[in-house]
Amino acid sequence: MVDDGVGGGRDRDPADDRRQAPHQLTDIAAQVDDRLLRVLNEQSARWAAVDPRLSEAVDELARMVTSGGKRLRAAFCYWAWHGARGLVADGPADSAASARVIDLGAAFEFLQVFALIHDDIMDNSATRRGSTTIHVANGRRLEANGWLGEARRYGEGVAILVGDLGHVYADQLTGGVHRRTRTIWDELRIELNLGQYLDMRAAAAGELDYATARQVATFKTALYTIVRPLQLGASLALPAERMADDEYRWLLDRLDRFGRPLGRAFQLRDDALGLIGDEAHLGKPVGDDLREGKPTEIVSYAVSHADAAQRSVLDRIGTRDLSVDAVTDIVAVLYDTGAMANNEAEIEHLLAEATGALDELPFDAESMKALGSLATYVAERDR
Amino acid sequence: MVDDGVGGGRDRDPADDRRQAPHQLTDIAAQVDDRLLRVLNEQSARWAAVDPRLSEAVDELARMVTSGGKRLRAAFCYWAWHGARGLVADGPADSAASARVIDLGAAFEFLQVFALIHDDIMDNSATRRGSTTIHVANGRRLEANGWLGEARRYGEGVAILVGDLGHVYADQLTGGVHRRTRTIWDELRIELNLGQYLDMRAAAAGELDYATARQVATFKTALYTIVRPLQLGASLALPAERMADDEYRWLLDRLDRFGRPLGRAFQLRDDALGLIGDEAHLGKPVGDDLREGKPTEIVSYAVSHADAAQRSVLDRIGTRDLSVDAVTDIVAVLYDTGAMANNEAEIEHLLAEATGALDELPFDAESMKALGSLATYVAERDR
Repeated sequence: MVDDGVGGGRDRDPADDRRQAPHQLTDIAAQVDDRLLRVLNEQSARWAAVDPRLSEAVDELARMVTSGGKRLRAAFCYWAWHGARGLVADGPADSAASARVIDLGAAFEFLQVFALIHDDIMDNSATRRGSTTIHVANGRRLEANGWLGEARRYGEGVAILVGDLGHVYADQLTGGVHRRTRTIWDELRIELNLGQYLDMRAAAAGELDYATARQVATFKTALYTIVRPLQLGASLALPAERMADDEYRWLLDRLDRFGRPLGRAFQLRDDALGLIGDEAHLGKPVGDDLREGKPTEIVSYAVSHADAAQRSVLDRIGTRDLSVDAVTDIVAVLYDTGAMANNEAEIEHLLAEATGALDELPFDAESMKALGSLATYVAERDR
Repeated sequence: MVDDGVGGGRDRDPADDRRQAPHQLTDIAAQVDDRLLRVLNEQSARWAAVDPRLSEAVDELARMVTSGGKRLRAAFCYWAWHGARGLVADGPADSAASARVIDLGAAFEFLQVFALIHDDIMDNSATRRGSTTIHVANGRRLEANGWLGEARRYGEGVAILVGDLGHVYADQLTGGVHRRTRTIWDELRIELNLGQYLDMRAAAAGELDYATARQVATFKTALYTIVRPLQLGASLALPAERMADDEYRWLLDRLDRFGRPLGRAFQLRDDALGLIGDEAHLGKPVGDDLREGKPTEIVSYAVSHADAAQRSVLDRIGTRDLSVDAVTDIVAVLYDTGAMANNEAEIEHLLAEATGALDELPFDAESMKALGSLATYVAERDR
């Protein structure tokens, strides 16, 4: 249930994830991809030389890393670093410093793949980013080869280990950072795991209340996807000897004020796309959120503004076997009650709030412009 | 299949794991336990205040951490640090430096619990250290509460996340280390995951050859349990500004020469205990290694020294439903062919090799004595 915002059709082109993205994202994404590939190729060659079976685990990880992804976290991380660097340095960024922030971006991508691989086991998802998930592919491998044991247990075991390996590579790429930066990195990893635990735990217990959904979204979208990448990037440019504690905390707080409403807008956009998006871009069947009874602001608003007839339609939300027609009927009510329009207005409002907070950041013009473009993209994307 | 060397009977006393251990292990273990509990209590209280459901994940981790373990890796780490520190410092260890090496010891324990929790999913083990494993306990919780979904998937999902959380806490405790030390920490985590992958992969493919078993044991026992903890501890005392690269590499190599034969002796002792140990101490049914067809030096020696009648008995190794009597018959052949005696002689030989390498380390007398006691304990333990 970690949101990847990535298309999953089998014939998809991984580059499709980044169509419509601003160049401030795609430029960074290209550098991050290079870094990821360098680590993966090096590790694969190294372990293949010890035993060809060892590199299989690295190659499975590579398959998932290279099959798509927007590299959004890497871009937020980069531009906050770029802005914060301007606060303490006179000259332009040197190449060694710039390599380190790309390392952090690559670390985010390994961490994301680790989370997705483990998550796909929990959800028993068959495809991810248009590829067969690791646990499914390796379960099939056991069957195809007539190996011993249970396909499910073996496939999931491989996926657990490949995910764990991704977690180590993520961490390895944060190697040289100073203590302030590491604190943020540790914190976001705890939040990521606990957010996912709460998500799974609440779903099992049928605790689909709105407050819980908000808490999960705060951990997994606002913090993990936007606030922490921003803070991590800024922090990298600001070791304790370059900026005093109180100034540093002020800056982290300002980045939080920018990132948190934006994270909320990201979530609301996701909720809307889950109802009316294009399946080819989204990679998941439209309407599944309704079948699962996912608590969203849209549904919550519709329920409280529905008349009796509309309410009887909405009552079918949370039914696993909703037909496409039933989904269409429910979506019509979501429009008729004004819930969809309200969601759009709320996204605009949140984007304005984020943009207002952005204006108060003391960053250079190029960084401001980049962060503004990323914000608009996040709130208004169609995939 | 990560070896914990820890008893698993339901009525066991966690303290039993450390009976017979030298005080140079138990003293460090007590300090490491305090540190582990401090992290766990702090994290549990912190997240319970946000949402009581969040701290459940921390508390499950705590249940596993506190239910046993020898803290062997922490002890090797500590004494190598103690010895290496004597090479560059004049005075006694100050308390801040000593707190950092205990942090590293605690990091090893969190990492070990992470590995055990994920491993127990792969092996579908029901108990660990005398407690119900995380995946089994949480699957039962779903059933007992009548929650939604499949018990197995939910239990395993919780265990994946609790393990991941343990991995993050492990890493968090290595926070302040310098680059040399972090390199070793990253390396041992890669080896741990790849060793486990090879173990699982080879077992599924029926590739139970002796060379593969040796490779797995090198990763998971020699390196992860002994060599890397020694090197990590020494490294902590020796940042680049305190010892030149070539001296540093020389020392790491010497520690490898001590740790590698000792790791091999640890493995051979384990193999013997798996055949003739006391189940109450071991926590696993004696004979299971024979049922699984685990390739050991004992079996390999017996096969090559058996006559025709003996060979027909040994042919039953690898049969899942071996009776207790059948196990007894096989073990008798292992004695009669001299395989058990050969294993003991090999352990003695490896211990002598390790002790010889230890004598060449330039450490102070107290550190040398402690490492010697740990070595003897590892090779001659009965649990």
